Amino acid sequence: MTNPTAAMLVIGDEILSGRTRDANMHHLAGQLTEAGITLSEVRIVSDDHDAIVAAVRALSDTWDSVFTSGGIGPTHDDITADAIGAAFGATVDVRDDARALLAAHYARSGQELNAARLRMARIPEGASLIDNPVSVAPGFTLGNVHVMAGVPSVFRAMVASVLPTLTGGAPLTSTSTRIDRGEGDIAGPLGDLAAEYPDLSMGSYPFQKDGKYGANIVIRGQDAARVTEATAKLQTLFA
Amino acid sequence: MTNPTAAMLVIGDEILSGRTRDANMHHLAGQLTEAGITLSEVRIVSDDHDAIVAAVRALSDTWDSVFTSGGIGPTHDDITADAIGAAFGATVDVRDDARALLAAHYARSGQELNAARLRMARIPEGASLIDNPVSVAPGFTLGNVHVMAGVPSVFRAMVASVLPTLTGGAPLTSTSTRIDRGEGDIAGPLGDLAAEYPDLSMGSYPFQKDGKYGANIVIRGQDAARVTEATAKLQTLFA
Repeated sequence: MTNPTAAMLVIGDEILSGRTRDANMHHLAGQLTEAGITLSEVRIVSDDHDAIVAAVRALSDTWDSVFTSGGIGPTHDDITADAIGAAFGATVDVRDDARALLAAHYARSGQELNAARLRMARIPEGASLIDNPVSVAPGFTLGNVHVMAGVPSVFRAMVASVLPTLTGGAPLTSTSTRIDRGEGDIAGPLGDLAAEYPDLSMGSYPFQKDGKYGANIVIRGQDAARVTEATAKLQTLFA
Repeated sequence: MTNPTAAMLVIGDEILSGRTRDANMHHLAGQLTEAGITLSEVRIVSDDHDAIVAAVRALSDTWDSVFTSGGIGPTHDDITADAIGAAFGATVDVRDDARALLAAHYARSGQELNAARLRMARIPEGASLIDNPVSVAPGFTLGNVHVMAGVPSVFRAMVASVLPTLTGGAPLTSTSTRIDRGEGDIAGPLGDLAAEYPDLSMGSYPFQKDGKYGANIVIRGQDAARVTEATAKLQTLFA
């Protein structure tokens, strides 16, 4: 059985310029892995309509589900909803259900639901809303694309809203074994071991600490017994 | 004048699984911005031959230069050199210049230049080598693609080797202004200001701290005087 696949699209000039370090990708990657969904590709594009449309189409066609982050706030550079609508040929306008959420929220807080804030109720036709317990303005799901905010606390809350609605696969079992030898000494025996266990994935992540070379060998697979067995063999090889 | 563009391709199962948080992208983004080169797109793909080939081709065709990170070590999962060769139709084999670098290094350190380590001398035909002052095994440049290691200290050293060989553009001037109001109150006036300065990019990056909303407004452009002028107007708007 192959696990379902997913991709992430980060919309963010601020990450491409080096101003901000992305935190959402790392969070989503961990959550999906735990749910047995394989994050297969990530793209980061700038706040550009055509770039977003092209990336959403490519990722939506290739993978089972797509998660986007960023560009759904009230300002002029928040163009994600329109781009997603364009990618799916759906019209985008202020929607009554989203407007009602915002109206109730701003009435409670005594703030004005002005034209800028109302932009956050622009939702493509046919999309379902994603709950935002942090700051109310909703995300949305259109087709297999889940559109979420870029602010990390809101992104996380939206991921928590969406994940239970997805069908996961078998969670992966993984082990990490630190071997204090140069990767060049590890590579030969590790390659043989990988060939012996084609159902497992074995990755070597080298490091250099205090002038010494080593590598963490990560073994992953759906069959926990096979992972345990291969890890034991690995440890014997380099004992 | 438009600045040259660049893309980054991260080859890394360990990032997609959430095991490791990428550090190279943030570093490269900052370095490129400083050099006046616009990082326009980032993709992260798994350690999969076809995925790497397809991504390299797409990015190389679209942007002025491409930087890759990861997958050029000695182990069985290091398949980047072959994938880059395949993307450009170049044969890949152990090359004398790269072998000589490795042979001298391992002779000095008293380690064996075994078959696994020799894999790091596999360089596509026609590529030029990228200096690696940290651990010797070279990266390479083929066409407009710069292929570099994933280990952060080595990646940084290789970026430092490559950057001076590229033609940069005008470095961007940027300002960041913190405004302690909800983004919905900022959006209207900010949109008008952005329309008044179409040559500048204005981004709004909202935050929530201690229960209060605010946003950092980043204004960027090549003309420092225009950036200063627009920033002053922004501050007046929200004084």
